Amino acid sequence: MSFQVEHKMSGDSVSIPLREGHRRSDEKAPYFAEERPGWKGYIEWENYPDKQKEAQEILAKYDFAKPPEYQLEPLPKTNPILEGVRWKQYHAALGPTLRDLPKISWEYVQKEKSPDMIHVLDFPYNGEPPKDRVIEHAITPNPLFFVRNHGGIPKINADDWTLNISGLVREPKRLTLADLKDESKFSRVSNIVSLQCSGTRRIEQIHEYPGDGDELINAPWGEGAIGTARWSGVSLKKVIKYCGGLKDGAGHLEFFGADTYFKKGKVYNYVVSIPWRKVKVHEAILAWEMNGEPLPRIHGYPVRVVVFGYIGARSVKWVYKINAIENPSMAPVQSKEYLYYTPQIGKQNATYSGGFSIQDMPVSSAIMNPIDQQQIIHDGTIKLKGWAYSGGGHWPVRVEVSGDGGSIWYEVDHKKMSDKYFYAWRLWEIDLPVDAEGWLEFCVRCWDNALNTQPTYVRSAWNWDLHVTSSCHRIKIYSINRSRRATAERLKFLEEKGMSITPITQPFPFDLETEEHYLEEVAIRGGRDPVE
Amino acid sequence: MSFQVEHKMSGDSVSIPLREGHRRSDEKAPYFAEERPGWKGYIEWENYPDKQKEAQEILAKYDFAKPPEYQLEPLPKTNPILEGVRWKQYHAALGPTLRDLPKISWEYVQKEKSPDMIHVLDFPYNGEPPKDRVIEHAITPNPLFFVRNHGGIPKINADDWTLNISGLVREPKRLTLADLKDESKFSRVSNIVSLQCSGTRRIEQIHEYPGDGDELINAPWGEGAIGTARWSGVSLKKVIKYCGGLKDGAGHLEFFGADTYFKKGKVYNYVVSIPWRKVKVHEAILAWEMNGEPLPRIHGYPVRVVVFGYIGARSVKWVYKINAIENPSMAPVQSKEYLYYTPQIGKQNATYSGGFSIQDMPVSSAIMNPIDQQQIIHDGTIKLKGWAYSGGGHWPVRVEVSGDGGSIWYEVDHKKMSDKYFYAWRLWEIDLPVDAEGWLEFCVRCWDNALNTQPTYVRSAWNWDLHVTSSCHRIKIYSINRSRRATAERLKFLEEKGMSITPITQPFPFDLETEEHYLEEVAIRGGRDPVE
Repeated sequence: MSFQVEHKMSGDSVSIPLREGHRRSDEKAPYFAEERPGWKGYIEWENYPDKQKEAQEILAKYDFAKPPEYQLEPLPKTNPILEGVRWKQYHAALGPTLRDLPKISWEYVQKEKSPDMIHVLDFPYNGEPPKDRVIEHAITPNPLFFVRNHGGIPKINADDWTLNISGLVREPKRLTLADLKDESKFSRVSNIVSLQCSGTRRIEQIHEYPGDGDELINAPWGEGAIGTARWSGVSLKKVIKYCGGLKDGAGHLEFFGADTYFKKGKVYNYVVSIPWRKVKVHEAILAWEMNGEPLPRIHGYPVRVVVFGYIGARSVKWVYKINAIENPSMAPVQSKEYLYYTPQIGKQNATYSGGFSIQDMPVSSAIMNPIDQQQIIHDGTIKLKGWAYSGGGHWPVRVEVSGDGGSIWYEVDHKKMSDKYFYAWRLWEIDLPVDAEGWLEFCVRCWDNALNTQPTYVRSAWNWDLHVTSSCHRIKIYSINRSRRATAERLKFLEEKGMSITPITQPFPFDLETEEHYLEEVAIRGGRDPVE
Repeated sequence: MSFQVEHKMSGDSVSIPLREGHRRSDEKAPYFAEERPGWKGYIEWENYPDKQKEAQEILAKYDFAKPPEYQLEPLPKTNPILEGVRWKQYHAALGPTLRDLPKISWEYVQKEKSPDMIHVLDFPYNGEPPKDRVIEHAITPNPLFFVRNHGGIPKINADDWTLNISGLVREPKRLTLADLKDESKFSRVSNIVSLQCSGTRRIEQIHEYPGDGDELINAPWGEGAIGTARWSGVSLKKVIKYCGGLKDGAGHLEFFGADTYFKKGKVYNYVVSIPWRKVKVHEAILAWEMNGEPLPRIHGYPVRVVVFGYIGARSVKWVYKINAIENPSMAPVQSKEYLYYTPQIGKQNATYSGGFSIQDMPVSSAIMNPIDQQQIIHDGTIKLKGWAYSGGGHWPVRVEVSGDGGSIWYEVDHKKMSDKYFYAWRLWEIDLPVDAEGWLEFCVRCWDNALNTQPTYVRSAWNWDLHVTSSCHRIKIYSINRSRRATAERLKFLEEKGMSITPITQPFPFDLETEEHYLEEVAIRGGRDPVE
C-alpha cells in the first residue's frame, strides 16, 4: 500500500454545529482550567464529578461529525489515513485548555517521530512505521516506535511532575521524579520489553469482517503497532512497598494518565488497572528512560508505566496517580474497552461483561517483507523477514513459515532469530524454497515456550471489538521463478525489449507466441478437440 | 456496492498523443470506407490484408492511454465502472467510419437497455443488471439481458443484410434474411437458451488475485453476465445442408461479426469458431428473434448466432459470414483469448497453446439476494435467491446452500426451482434456517445431471485470464437473529429510541449495559481473574 502525504494541520479552524434548541449566544464560554503549574493540556476530571458533569452538558449541545465509514468502504489512501475530526471537535468544544491539543500533539509527531511514519489516525495520534522499518532493529529506535494515544499529548515539566500513590496503600504518598531517581530509596531497573497494541493487524479483521466502529479510535492498524525498547526506571513493587505496602483487600492498581479521554459524551482522564500479582513479580515498572534517553513527550514524558507482557493500553503514559483498589478499575478503558468477544457477539447483543478483558498478549507474528500482493522475481528462493512475539510471560521459541498457505511449514533457523528475552519479540528471517509460480499464499506462525501457537485464519478468531489479530499472518505473493526455463526466456525477451514484467496486470503489446509455435504445440496436444 | 451515475458522453473529444517522430501534419487523414450500403460502422478487414496493414501502421503512430489499474487498486465507484479510453482512442484513430461508434453505441444502450444497468465498461459496451433484477424473471426481458460487446455496435438494415456461407462447403451461397425466413427452405426453430459470459463473477478472482489486464476488455463482471431468452431462427445445420453440406476435412465453422476488433495494435473483425459436431446436433442457430421480438441492435440485429451451452463469445452478433474450415479458427478471439490456464501460468510463462479453449460452460451458480456484507435482521430464517446453470449439454438438477461456509448443506426444494430446460439456467430460492449471529459465510453449489459440481474456493480454480469463476459463490452476511432474547431486547430498545442497528460499524451513543448489570455479571463469572 502506498500513501500520499497530505496533512491538514491539526486543530485549525474546527467548527461544530450546535444541536437544535441551542444557540451559541446562550453559552458562557466553557473554561476548564489547567490543573497544575508546569503542566499544559492536563485537566483533572476524576477528582471533580461536577466538572465532568459540566463538560458532559456542553458536549450534549453539539452535533459532532459522524465517525467516518472506513470498514464497509476502502480506507482512504492518504497519510494520515484517518483524521479524527470528531475528536478534534470534542477538544475544541471544551475551550482553550484543550482546543490546541491536536495542533500541539501534531507538533510532537513532527519533532519526535520518524518522518516516514504511517499516521493511522491524525488525532488522537496513532502511528506505525513502514513495514520494512518495523523490523530494521531488534531494539526499536525511539523515532520508529509505534504510537497509540487516546487523547492529546500533555506537556509536563519534569521538575513539576508528581505522582500520587493513594487508595488501599498503608501510607499514601506524593512522589517527585527526584524521589524515584533516588537510588537510596529505589534500586534502578532496566528491561528490554516489547509493547504491543492489541489492535495490531486489525486491518486484517476489518478486511474480512467489519466490526465495532468505536467512534474511530479503533484505528486500522497494520503489523507495525509493536516495538521493543530498553525501559529504565524503578519497579512499581518497590514504590508500593515504600508506601507501606497494600492494605488488606487491595488486589489491583489503577493508573491515571494526564490525557483527557472522551467516551459516549462523557469526559475522563485515561485510567486503567492491572492486578497486584503482576506488580508483585516485578513485571510493572515506572520508567523515565526509553533506550537510554528521557522518554519522548509522545511516549509519556516524564514518567510512564511499562507493564511487561500485557497489552500496551495498560502501560499508562503521563501517569500522575496510582490508586490501590479491590477489583479491576471501573474506568471505561478498563471495563468497557479492550474486551475480547466470541464471533457471535456483536452490536446486536454485546455487553461489556460478556467479553473478557485483554491483559496478557498471546503469541503472534507477522511477515514484514515481502508485502501483500508483491510480485517477486526470484531464483527458487524468496527471503522472508518478520517479527514474532508472545506476551503473558512467554517468549518465542520457534517460528515457522509456509509458502503454500499452511500445509508445509519450514522452521526458521535459530541462528536467524534475534536474541531471546523474557518480555520481548524476536526478529527472524528465512530463505524459503519456492518452486511454484503465480499467486502463492505465504504465512507464518510462532510457537512460544508454553507451546502456544496461533489460530489458523482471521475468521478463526474474529471478534466484534477487532482486537488481537493473532491468527497466522498471511500474504499473497506473485511468484516469478527465473530458474524455470519458460520464465527465464520471457524475462530475457523482456530485458532485450527494455520492458518490465510488473505490474503483472499491464498487458504485453506483443503476442505470447508465434503462430508456428502455437500450431506445433496444439498439434502435440492432439489438437484442441479429440479426432473421434 | 452502490454506484454513482456519472457518465461522460462517449466519443466526445477523444484526443490521442502521437508517438515521438510522428507529426500530425505528415499524415494523410485515414479513411476506411463503410463496406456496404445500409451498413453503418462496418469495415471489412478480414478480406483486405492491405487495409489491415495500413490500420496497423496508423495505430503504431499513437501513444494510446495505458489500461487503467483496476485490479491491484479498488474499482472506481462510478457507473460506468470503467470507461475504455484506449478503445475509444483506437476508434478515433482510424477516422470517420469508426470515430462515432462509441457515441452511437452509447445511444443504443440508452435506447435498448434498462436504465438501471450497471455499466461495467462504457466502451466497448459491457453491462449487467443489478443483482436483484438478474433473477427477476426466469426468462430475462430483453432490456435486462447482459451485454458483452467487443467493439462498437454496427447499424445494419435488415433488408440490406446478407450472410456469406463459404470455405469448405460444397455450394457457397449468399443468403438474405428473407431466405432464412422462407419456411419452405428452413423450418423455424425456437429454444430457451441461457447465454453466459465466461467472465461472469470475474470480480471474485480479481479481489483474491489480480490477473491478465488484457487491455481492459476483461471487464470486472459480477454475477449478472448471464441471461436466458427464447431465441428464434433456423438451425445452422439446415443452412449448411442448404449449401450442399460440408466438404471432406471440414471440422469447424468460423463466424464473422461486423464489429471491428482491436488486439495488440492490429485490427480485425470479430471472428470465432465452433466445431461442426456442435452444429450437427442442432445446438447452434441463426436467430433474428429474442423473446418474440426482433433482436435489439445491441444484441446483434438483424441476425446473430446462438450456440447452446457454450461460452457467450461464440454466439456472434451481426454475423455476416460463415466459413467452413478444417481446424479451430486462428482468429485472435478464438486462438488467443478465452483460454483457461492452470494457476502456475501467468504473465511470466503464458502461451496461447498452454491454455485450453473455453467452449462448453461448466456448472455454476450464484446467490443474488441477499448481497455480500448485508446486515440482516431475521427471526431464525433468511431467504436466499439465485441462479444455477450448467452448459455443455447439462442442466441443473440440484442446488444446495450452506450458512456456515460449506460444512452443512441444505437442498433447495425442487418446487422452489424454476422450470428445467436442456440449455437454460434455473432460478431458485430457499428459506435457510439461520440460528447463529454475527458474520456468517453463505455459499451455494449446483449439481448438474452429470453429477458435476463446483470447485470449493476461488483459489481452487483461479486462472491467469480470470475466466470461468465457477467456484461455490460465497457471500458474507451479518446475521442479527431477533428470535434470540438479548438481540430482541436490544432491537426493542433501539426502536424505542428511534435508532437503527445498521450500519453495524456506527457506534451507539449509549452504554451497552448498566454498571449494576456489569458488576452482577462479572461476579457471576467469578470476577475478571481467579481469586487464588
